[in-house]
Amino acid sequence: MFVRQNVAKMQPYVPGEQPIEGGFVKLNTNENPYPPSPEVVRALLAEAWGALNLYPDPMANPVRDRLAQRFHLDRGMFLVGNGGDDLLTIITRCLAGEGDTVAYPVPTYILYETLADLQGSRKLEVPYAADFALPPGLFGSPAKVTFLANPNSPSGTSVPQSAVQELAASLKGVLVVDEAYVDFADESCIFLVGKVPNLCVLRSFSKSFSLAGLRIGYVAAGENLITEFVKAKDSYNVNRLSIAAAAAALDDYDYMLANVAKIRRTRGSLTEALTELGFSVLPSQANFIWAKAPEPGAAEIYQTLKSRRILVRFWDRGELRDYLRISIGTRGQIDALLAAVRDIVGVKDAG
Amino acid sequence: MFVRQNVAKMQPYVPGEQPIEGGFVKLNTNENPYPPSPEVVRALLAEAWGALNLYPDPMANPVRDRLAQRFHLDRGMFLVGNGGDDLLTIITRCLAGEGDTVAYPVPTYILYETLADLQGSRKLEVPYAADFALPPGLFGSPAKVTFLANPNSPSGTSVPQSAVQELAASLKGVLVVDEAYVDFADESCIFLVGKVPNLCVLRSFSKSFSLAGLRIGYVAAGENLITEFVKAKDSYNVNRLSIAAAAAALDDYDYMLANVAKIRRTRGSLTEALTELGFSVLPSQANFIWAKAPEPGAAEIYQTLKSRRILVRFWDRGELRDYLRISIGTRGQIDALLAAVRDIVGVKDAG
Repeated sequence: MFVRQNVAKMQPYVPGEQPIEGGFVKLNTNENPYPPSPEVVRALLAEAWGALNLYPDPMANPVRDRLAQRFHLDRGMFLVGNGGDDLLTIITRCLAGEGDTVAYPVPTYILYETLADLQGSRKLEVPYAADFALPPGLFGSPAKVTFLANPNSPSGTSVPQSAVQELAASLKGVLVVDEAYVDFADESCIFLVGKVPNLCVLRSFSKSFSLAGLRIGYVAAGENLITEFVKAKDSYNVNRLSIAAAAAALDDYDYMLANVAKIRRTRGSLTEALTELGFSVLPSQANFIWAKAPEPGAAEIYQTLKSRRILVRFWDRGELRDYLRISIGTRGQIDALLAAVRDIVGVKDAG
Repeated sequence: MFVRQNVAKMQPYVPGEQPIEGGFVKLNTNENPYPPSPEVVRALLAEAWGALNLYPDPMANPVRDRLAQRFHLDRGMFLVGNGGDDLLTIITRCLAGEGDTVAYPVPTYILYETLADLQGSRKLEVPYAADFALPPGLFGSPAKVTFLANPNSPSGTSVPQSAVQELAASLKGVLVVDEAYVDFADESCIFLVGKVPNLCVLRSFSKSFSLAGLRIGYVAAGENLITEFVKAKDSYNVNRLSIAAAAAALDDYDYMLANVAKIRRTRGSLTEALTELGFSVLPSQANFIWAKAPEPGAAEIYQTLKSRRILVRFWDRGELRDYLRISIGTRGQIDALLAAVRDIVGVKDAG
């Protein structure tokens, strides 16, 4: 009772486990294994003594100014949010009402479905084929908003900028390219912003900048769209400390790039090692890999790893249940994972 | 184009001015003039060295546990949000769809209107009479959700717990009592939570705990409602630093109470002084007062104060334009305000 029907029948989203005790090798929620830049910590220490009793800058302008400079776009083309999820929420509320269509390829980030359900919108879910190229069924759809995680999760795959451009051109509604993982990829669509009128590009500080704990993301789009999105955001949606941290992180961009380079190298060697162990690993452009597991199967490998305090991500649902998603940790974490996997896969093979 | 009609026709909310330069006496957005507890700063300094690269606790359980203990309620009866606004958004999305009714007395916090517009809901706006008692038109309404800011803003007035209980009993939908300012008041409705099934009580760390910059609030309600609200929240809606700060603030509750006592005393003397200067001040239960201005009128007093770098809140709209809302600052800030007001009112009286 009290609650809207579309909400009442929703299943709550269950985020990846966040163990309270330490001692876990945590490779389940695509966090960056390296700490953020020391400049970020310095900025936080300074801000902790700052005017915490006063509201933050409602538009997070210190962050927008730096983004504008970096991407050679106007400040008015950026909106900063309490993590990418806040911005996905804002965008969906502005674009899709009850009965409108929200489209996305599947499998992908589960939040798109949740947001459509919350709006009471129709969902157009178009399955990816095995190659994870853009599915033709997305093109020319009547959707008010189409979400494309690029790189995608859980697959880790990416579609080229040219395909994104074709998709955008085919749509009457808005295309949101969710680039949460793009810093680990070879190309981005952010340079299309302002040129393609129905394109929004979403980014996050959670992954490449090692700031998942601070909740900061941004969307870049034409200023006419940003102006509308502002109406749907909370007045003060990003806190003082997050603003200071994001600004400092952008000022130390090279630190992020160096961590990304390390993670990409580790991704390469993990892919190679798992392939040797009988996994089918999709080509990843993200800070995780998605792999079809050999015997004894994904469910059992997941459980056994967990009992050894190594967390990876497993969905007990449809075709996903043959796969494991493994975040790229440090070399040491990945070595520990591989040792355990060798043990699990090897023992069972011999059994 | 692209945007929903209900959003396109909305006017964006303009938060109170947040001057970037210092040197302002800032009495316009109801911030606490005192810094937060030193324990909060200590917790932030520790957390800044913590695992910022990892996602926060999705449910902010360190905060919920402390709230449960303080209010003798179950942990499952609390949801923590990125400020009270985040929770108002969550609640509205769960309860009111397109064409449903959202009710609230007016004038009040402008966000209720914004949230109804974003949902495409009907607005039942029931004017307060001059005494700011609960308007009879709110009782028995068909609203899916009714918002009651108590104490109210901008009036600063409060309605008694007994009236709130009667209102809740008359409604088929949910009553959200927004207690953002309640620590400055004589009574609260939080002890009705769990006893009145359609009651939600919202609170904030922004005002009494001096943490406006950190964005933390919570709602207390029956566990069945909280379970639904969780579906509509972002997975990680409160950041690590805010969780640490809120937990530390709750551990130093007496610090907050001492600041509140100071602010209540200053509120009393400000009320007295303004009354002597010809203002009609409503009886305030909040950390601000709302006062009908004498000659030369609210608009001119506001502007002249601003030119002297003293910010108060003025709305150039309907009956509101006869009034000023003044946040309770430190003794020193209020003395500066009163000196300036004396000058402005006095000069014009003589002119």
